[in-house]
Amino acid sequence: MADQYAQSGGGIRPIDGIRSEAVDIPAIRWEEPAEGPVLVLLDQTRLPAEEVELVCTDPQALVQAIRSLAVRGAPLLGIAGAYGVALAAARGFDVEEAAEALADARPTAVNLAYGVRRAQEAYRSAFSGGADAGQGVGARERAAAAALASARALHAEDAEASVGMAEHGLRLLDELVPGGNHRILTHCNTGALVSGGEGTAFAVALAAHRAGRLRRLWVDETRPLLQGARLTAYEAARNGMAYTLLTDNAAGSLFAAGEVDAVLIGADRIAADGSVANKVGSYPLAVLARYHHVPFIVVAPVTTIDPETADGASIEVEQRAGHEVTEVTAPRVPLAGVEAGGGIPVAPLGTQAYNPAFDVTPPDLVTAIVTECGVVSPVTSDGLSELCASSLQATMS
Amino acid sequence: MADQYAQSGGGIRPIDGIRSEAVDIPAIRWEEPAEGPVLVLLDQTRLPAEEVELVCTDPQALVQAIRSLAVRGAPLLGIAGAYGVALAAARGFDVEEAAEALADARPTAVNLAYGVRRAQEAYRSAFSGGADAGQGVGARERAAAAALASARALHAEDAEASVGMAEHGLRLLDELVPGGNHRILTHCNTGALVSGGEGTAFAVALAAHRAGRLRRLWVDETRPLLQGARLTAYEAARNGMAYTLLTDNAAGSLFAAGEVDAVLIGADRIAADGSVANKVGSYPLAVLARYHHVPFIVVAPVTTIDPETADGASIEVEQRAGHEVTEVTAPRVPLAGVEAGGGIPVAPLGTQAYNPAFDVTPPDLVTAIVTECGVVSPVTSDGLSELCASSLQATMS
Repeated sequence: MADQYAQSGGGIRPIDGIRSEAVDIPAIRWEEPAEGPVLVLLDQTRLPAEEVELVCTDPQALVQAIRSLAVRGAPLLGIAGAYGVALAAARGFDVEEAAEALADARPTAVNLAYGVRRAQEAYRSAFSGGADAGQGVGARERAAAAALASARALHAEDAEASVGMAEHGLRLLDELVPGGNHRILTHCNTGALVSGGEGTAFAVALAAHRAGRLRRLWVDETRPLLQGARLTAYEAARNGMAYTLLTDNAAGSLFAAGEVDAVLIGADRIAADGSVANKVGSYPLAVLARYHHVPFIVVAPVTTIDPETADGASIEVEQRAGHEVTEVTAPRVPLAGVEAGGGIPVAPLGTQAYNPAFDVTPPDLVTAIVTECGVVSPVTSDGLSELCASSLQATMS
Repeated sequence: MADQYAQSGGGIRPIDGIRSEAVDIPAIRWEEPAEGPVLVLLDQTRLPAEEVELVCTDPQALVQAIRSLAVRGAPLLGIAGAYGVALAAARGFDVEEAAEALADARPTAVNLAYGVRRAQEAYRSAFSGGADAGQGVGARERAAAAALASARALHAEDAEASVGMAEHGLRLLDELVPGGNHRILTHCNTGALVSGGEGTAFAVALAAHRAGRLRRLWVDETRPLLQGARLTAYEAARNGMAYTLLTDNAAGSLFAAGEVDAVLIGADRIAADGSVANKVGSYPLAVLARYHHVPFIVVAPVTTIDPETADGASIEVEQRAGHEVTEVTAPRVPLAGVEAGGGIPVAPLGTQAYNPAFDVTPPDLVTAIVTECGVVSPVTSDGLSELCASSLQATMS
């Protein structure tokens, strides 16, 4: 068995007063203390009550952090996966085995497998290059350095992509909803906590806020794990945005009252036909948006588009444990007297739950897909292929 | 200030093993111990963790129990309101003042005001009859007895109405979804806990279960107060029904997968045009049901239809405190160290919340309204007036 991850001593800060600070704790960072390289994660399950960092010293600890959602969000999972391969390489673990375990830690977000594969290929390529030259240990070191360089490049590219998505997204928003004063509904968490930069959908809302054109950010709480209430509210508060929290099922009342100008969400995987897998609850918003003639906009980096997945039906949707629904897990829930899942039971014992982590929105309900390379609208297979081709060309040129 | 209500000593039972018992604790009952008459309520905020009864000795305690949702659900609120007037009369409180406070305790459910008014009118009528005869204290006693008889009649009528709704509802379900094996999605709680009998929408599902034609009851957890997870799951488990709990936002995935044959919900007020006010989250289900061509059926007693409310826009929707959203309140949440609302904070301090208790579904999204007097489908003003007229005629004959 691999080592368990440890908590850093000084990373705990109280919730109070967070609104006056800027975001100063990155969601992920690579460090190289004397004991050897580590991957440091901000434990997102503890936010907003506590800012606690997890220090991963081996890939298995990272796999566990990914499964428990301590680190989450499609783009960040890609970055974490790449660093995980670099960690395995730097610490002398079996890189192929680690890459497989990391890529399989969660099934739906394509970015995770992408990040893992990218660092793995960099490692393999450097290693075989070194092996050909017959340099043994030196080759392994060079390969580990190549994996790390690859992870760092992905990290930096994601930060850059955030900027691009925010620009394209705000421009689209201004076109679709002229006059500014946008009232944006968002779901789950898509900000700096999921990204090397400022995120995807949230980055667009933040750009609107900075431009003085955000009237209100409506934040869906996002059951069962409350990423909206815990994480998006945390990021919105830190950035001084005008935001209001609501239960997911209250969004219907907002639409009916004409209080939503646009829905902005992220994505975990976009199939070749434009079907969008995202946090469960996205699809009902798409149906409500269509019924009320409100634009439904998906914001994601190009790496979220997966040409290998033909359509929505081909997307594997992760089913998570029922206790996430039958119990309420919240930061600060005392641990004494709790049941199997670690939360407080709300349903009778023995209650069975249906708990898909994601749902799939068909392309005809999506007004536009915004990426760092441009906007696809209407959402069609051809439009997506063209975007991917031009993005590939841009990368290669 | 009026007395606070007390808890009965022996009413606490553990959650475990509830599935093997039948429902044996009524949601409301009138008792006449030596100290004077009391209204005993099953505290629904403590379910399913504990079965605790509240004993109301004065109308103000009942008002508080209504506001805190210890007693809730449209039909039961009507019964509680009527008993509250009877309690005020029997205990020598100002009946007119008590009636006003009870009717105003919550704004949306029309049944509350109806029950209060009915007992109040019985009281007034008996009192003025007695006063004419110059019988002083005797008149007051007779009036109190009349108010109590009126409350008991409403209680019994509601039990009878449940039977009628279940019959009409199951027949409609069998017509709309031939072949039995119904997969029913429901929201909030509409069973024996809201009724003098077996409830409204839940009573229809229960009838299907008893007839061997319920394949699955899908139970929306119903944020923010989790009436589905806590109360509907409790009633479904006690009745041995095949049920599965889900977060409200996972319903979209069930519709998309073709797993829902019909939606069955209750109502807190039905306007003259057929607009239905019900627990927040009902309207999004109606939109999803329409999009997926699934019947959306509202089950409510005739007293829920309010000819005085012209349309959906005229329905006053109760806005509840934001802490219901920013904090998670669950049975068994320890009281130490919690914040203002008594729950565990999940959002950053200072987070503002939008928390309407109800939403309004327009008649064109409602496939049918099922009452104890028959079914209205399609839902039109004329259809509803005819039903109300025939119900009135039946009552008078």
